[in-house]
Amino acid sequence: MTKKILIVGGVAGGASAAARLRRLDEEAEIILFERGEFISFANCGLPYYIGGAIQERNKLLVQTPEAMHARFNIDIRVNSEVIGIDAKNNSVKVASETRGVYDETYDFLVLSPGAKAIRPKIPGIEHPGIFTLRNIPDTDNIKDFIERKLVKKAVVVGGGFVGVEVAENLTEKGIAVTIVEAAPHILAPFDSDMVTRAEKELQEHGIALVLGDSVTGFSDRNGIVEVALKSEKRLEADLIILAIGVTPDTGFIKDSGIELGPKGHIVVNDKLQTSINNIYAVGDAIETVDFVNGQKTTIPLAGPANKQGRIAADNICGIASTYKGTQGTSIIKIFSLTGACTGSNERTLANSGIPFHVIYVHPNAHAAYYPGAAPLSIKLIFDSEGKILGAQAFGYEGVDKRIDDIATVIRLRGTVTDLTELELAYAPPYSSAKDPVNMAGYVAENVLRGRMEVVLPRDMNTIDLNRVQLVDVRTEEEYKNGHIEGAVHIPVDSIRDRISEFSKDKEIWLYCKVGLRGYIAASVLSQKGYKVKNLTGGYESFMLANF
Amino acid sequence: MTKKILIVGGVAGGASAAARLRRLDEEAEIILFERGEFISFANCGLPYYIGGAIQERNKLLVQTPEAMHARFNIDIRVNSEVIGIDAKNNSVKVASETRGVYDETYDFLVLSPGAKAIRPKIPGIEHPGIFTLRNIPDTDNIKDFIERKLVKKAVVVGGGFVGVEVAENLTEKGIAVTIVEAAPHILAPFDSDMVTRAEKELQEHGIALVLGDSVTGFSDRNGIVEVALKSEKRLEADLIILAIGVTPDTGFIKDSGIELGPKGHIVVNDKLQTSINNIYAVGDAIETVDFVNGQKTTIPLAGPANKQGRIAADNICGIASTYKGTQGTSIIKIFSLTGACTGSNERTLANSGIPFHVIYVHPNAHAAYYPGAAPLSIKLIFDSEGKILGAQAFGYEGVDKRIDDIATVIRLRGTVTDLTELELAYAPPYSSAKDPVNMAGYVAENVLRGRMEVVLPRDMNTIDLNRVQLVDVRTEEEYKNGHIEGAVHIPVDSIRDRISEFSKDKEIWLYCKVGLRGYIAASVLSQKGYKVKNLTGGYESFMLANF
Ligand SMILES: Cc1cc2nc3c(=O)[nH]c(=O)nc-3n(C[C@H](O)[C@H](O)[C@H](O)COP(=O)(O)OP(=O)(O)OC[C@H]3O[C@@H](n4cnc5c(N)ncnc54)[C@H](O)[C@@H]3O)c2cc1C
Ligand SMILES: Cc1cc2nc3c(=O)[nH]c(=O)nc-3n(C[C@H](O)[C@H](O)[C@H](O)COP(=O)(O)OP(=O)(O)OC[C@H]3O[C@@H](n4cnc5c(N)ncnc54)[C@H](O)[C@@H]3O)c2cc1C
Ligand SMILES: CC(C)(COP(=O)(O)OP(=O)(O)OC[C@H]1O[C@@H](n2cnc3c(N)ncnc32)[C@H](O)[C@@H]1OP(=O)(O)O)[C@@H](O)C(=O)NCCC(=O)NCCS
Ligand SMILES: CC(C)(COP(=O)(O)OP(=O)(O)OC[C@H]1O[C@@H](n2cnc3c(N)ncnc32)[C@H](O)[C@@H]1OP(=O)(O)O)[C@@H](O)C(=O)NCCC(=O)NCCS
Repeated sequence: MTKKILIVGGVAGGASAAARLRRLDEEAEIILFERGEFISFANCGLPYYIGGAIQERNKLLVQTPEAMHARFNIDIRVNSEVIGIDAKNNSVKVASETRGVYDETYDFLVLSPGAKAIRPKIPGIEHPGIFTLRNIPDTDNIKDFIERKLVKKAVVVGGGFVGVEVAENLTEKGIAVTIVEAAPHILAPFDSDMVTRAEKELQEHGIALVLGDSVTGFSDRNGIVEVALKSEKRLEADLIILAIGVTPDTGFIKDSGIELGPKGHIVVNDKLQTSINNIYAVGDAIETVDFVNGQKTTIPLAGPANKQGRIAADNICGIASTYKGTQGTSIIKIFSLTGACTGSNERTLANSGIPFHVIYVHPNAHAAYYPGAAPLSIKLIFDSEGKILGAQAFGYEGVDKRIDDIATVIRLRGTVTDLTELELAYAPPYSSAKDPVNMAGYVAENVLRGRMEVVLPRDMNTIDLNRVQLVDVRTEEEYKNGHIEGAVHIPVDSIRDRISEFSKDKEIWLYCKVGLRGYIAASVLSQKGYKVKNLTGGYESFMLANF
Repeated sequence: MTKKILIVGGVAGGASAAARLRRLDEEAEIILFERGEFISFANCGLPYYIGGAIQERNKLLVQTPEAMHARFNIDIRVNSEVIGIDAKNNSVKVASETRGVYDETYDFLVLSPGAKAIRPKIPGIEHPGIFTLRNIPDTDNIKDFIERKLVKKAVVVGGGFVGVEVAENLTEKGIAVTIVEAAPHILAPFDSDMVTRAEKELQEHGIALVLGDSVTGFSDRNGIVEVALKSEKRLEADLIILAIGVTPDTGFIKDSGIELGPKGHIVVNDKLQTSINNIYAVGDAIETVDFVNGQKTTIPLAGPANKQGRIAADNICGIASTYKGTQGTSIIKIFSLTGACTGSNERTLANSGIPFHVIYVHPNAHAAYYPGAAPLSIKLIFDSEGKILGAQAFGYEGVDKRIDDIATVIRLRGTVTDLTELELAYAPPYSSAKDPVNMAGYVAENVLRGRMEVVLPRDMNTIDLNRVQLVDVRTEEEYKNGHIEGAVHIPVDSIRDRISEFSKDKEIWLYCKVGLRGYIAASVLSQKGYKVKNLTGGYESFMLANF
């Protein structure tokens, strides 16, 4: 018996499911409904088309309805919105631009409606200069508006991934951009002690950041949008991009009997089956499991959406395939800087009451003696058994590689000891004999084995110099160029000679530039009976945390 | 009781062991003997200093005896060769330039003498224009010779990693280079069907390759070296670099009672202990275990050497730490191309009688619609349980990242299914929603699950068109630009309409450019009852294998 399968949503999750379904079952009847005019477009490329890095619009169309039909024999119905599901009768209601409203029955239904940009009900939100960015028409509208209005100034509301990408791309077009972010820092998946690198990069490229402040209203002044902020500050701009997050596009599911989560996400099991057996759901619209901590989460990313589409197709075709959760691996280009992260950050873990350790390293992305070497910063978060909980990195080269390595170890439930043992590709242009990821593993292992007690950059804020001797072990030149308040200076290479200058009564906190010399000094002193701690990440992490 | 530890060899393994020993034990007496003038130098950087990418010679000196002493309080004795070991009396004999010959006792001994470049006894080998490259004096000599003699032409004997790096760097200096390699292809860790990409890149940069031929003798003609080859061909050059491999530098160990392997490598257990309890050995001089197949192997690489140095130090200081084997992860820059590999290649597996599967993919290194996208080629080798045995890759971007991901999965004993589930960092400048590594996993899984039967490029050489219908499913334009002999042309998008043109009697072999369209076509046909196989890697792999 041939199956009849309907798919709602024709982009990342939906189109992937459709293609896999056809490969698995040449006989099935497959109908794909897409509300918009386009399927299979490159959502992730939209900001770069606005900025001009991507020049040709049709490069964004990875597949067209015609091409997809020709290759996969799928009945693709664009401009067709599914407006209701009658799960009892296995049928959906479709509102089509050309065919009007009609019903279509199914044996299996795959839901991949994605999410829509949040447009909060604040005064003035309907101003024609205010846009969101989710699809091709949004992009066309923004591009067109920029050209028609000769936009010079823009405000991006929201400093998430999309907001920052848009800000970068508007800047590339010569537009002066301000980002307004309600939280104290942008890019929430990163902890605040790391994300300052991104903030610095944005500012260095002329982007103004308004942090810890939020928009209370918009108003018009001769076509220019005035933005009122909670702080009573006012901004003005020709163009506003709202990028304050997304909400699942599941309105049409509400009355279907399919279980939804508290924020409207579709609840699925690990086969991506909804509460109704023959209905599957994937992508931004679903609730999934946090791979690291096992809790429910919602992570709207293209990698998971595409993989889930394939897994749903497998299950419909009788191939046992499970989705084991999302770990939130993500990455962003910010001019020449790259930031990437995977797993949980401190905030998530603290909120969940999960105990963790933190270390920072700042090794060179490739051998120091080979041209172009520059440090990258890695923050590694792990538990007392050494299990890796998360990592964040920033740098100009090799950041993607290191986060991918760590993401891989997380997926395979590995530990910091596994990091030390990874045999990664080394030649001078690419890495060092001990790769930065090995190095992070060594440092973490030293913490776990009690070989190095660490203090964190934030501990410097509460340091009590009556009980702690703070020692800078860098060179004299480094110390003179700037040091932490209250630090005395004893270079690492003279600690053995000057050991009498260390306090026997106080705890000694050491720091150097990145943590390595501090660790070497700590090894000497602790073996001599001093009570020593080392500032992990050193002055570099201290400055990042206090940017 | 303070330990007295002697270390033989002051570079990758030896210096790493020394530093870690000191960090673990502030009281130990640590003496490091180095035969040469320099310690801790960047062996791996030497070719780039010759080529000029690295400009300052002292960048190659990662540590100096003085700096290392200041930091680690280690007694560093350069120009001091250990010429014998008296294991019964725990003492070594040292020949020092300044102190003459003397004995030094130890509680523990760490051997990291490395390897020396092979200089075969062939006629004329003593010609002053013939060099090997292992250390700083070698490098100085080569650089000096090039400048003094205004070298215009060079022959590099041996197409291994060092040979190819030297060839690249001499070319960068404007010298015309010929590589002579006895095997049919260069860079033995790669299989011949992949390494052709490297050979092409070298030729495109003007380097001549003489493959499957070997040097039988050298002679002088007015200061120019004439190279006689087995094929009777003759080459001439101002400069010859011998890079035909290394042999463990263990002559001084011969009479010590320490067990050596058949080729003079030191035999160690997983604590890196030799056959004598208080003597450890690390680096290029030891025999180690192949992490993938468990057999004995010798892999002279810096990553393993540095890690082993640390592990030996751990064990001496009572920290249980084991070395679990080397998987041969390595990488090479060849002008703008990168080649990297990890695990076993086909040759090794075939020699060991280990059965395996092979697939190729050629996905873009990052999203096709984002500027600069270019394909990389990955060959994945795995067993019938899905366990990954090895991988090789070539490309212009992101090759290091993909091989590191796969190397990580190999380390954690993962499978091709793990590859499909890796959640890697995706934004358009870095990757695709399904990363190339995920893609390799999918393709491999399809093979294992019997969803796609594949033929290999080499099978095209033995194709019997009486029994096989060979079908090119690419576009007409692609077909016209070149196709495999004997192929008929039916584009993938018309197979459903033209199904009657497929043979019911013959086996059908399909191919496209990279394997994807062939696979889609195969899915259709096999479900319709045709007996189909798909050329893995497509025309791209076919051309690579037949370069
Ligand atoms: C500007 C931008 C940049 C991004 N960059 C990245 C990035 O770099 N990396 C990354 O991993 N992710 C990125 N994402 C996120 C990624 O695009 C999404 O996670 C992914 O597209 C989700 O796939 P999906 O199938 O769930 O939803 P979508 O791809 O959004 O597809 C859903 C489709 O369903 C249609 N639809 C909705 N309801 C109905 C209905 N009732 N009837 C018919 N059709 C319906 C919608 O019109 C839409 O076309 C980005 C997103 C945006 C907007
Ligand atoms: C040109 C070149 C490029 C390379 N590129 C790479 C690369 O890109 N990636 C990579 O992973 N590996 C590379 N390698 C290999 C890497 O350098 C070695 O694997 C590594 O250095 C081995 O470390 P080791 O401590 O065993 O030996 P070495 O680093 O060679 O150190 C051994 C030292 O011991 C000394 N010694 C020997 N015998 C005695 C004795 N009896 N008494 C006192 N001293 C003694 C020697 O003088 C030598 O200095 C390269 C090697 C070369 C030569
Ligand atoms: C220079 C050399 C002696 C350094 O050895 P080393 O001190 O063990 O290595 P590194 O400088 O990389 O430092 C690693 C140590 O610093 C620690 N470390 C690194 N970054 C740190 C940080 N930010 N905070 C705290 N500790 C840090 C690591 O944990 C490790 O210590 P451990 O082994 O006690 O755990 C040795 O690598 C060498 O001789 N190299 C040149 C020769 C060579 O390798 N050639 C082949 C390649 S070209
Ligand atoms: C275009 C689109 C429909 C393609 O879906 P798809 O066919 O499943 O995906 P791909 O083209 O990547 O191909 C993957 C398939 O090809 C196979 N494949 C890839 N390379 C192969 C090769 N060299 N040889 C054989 N098979 C190969 C894989 O095994 C996989 O098949 P399987 O799922 O049956 O195992 C879908 O990805 C899409 O709509 N993308 C655009 C929207 C989007 O993702 N947006 C968010 C990111 S910007």
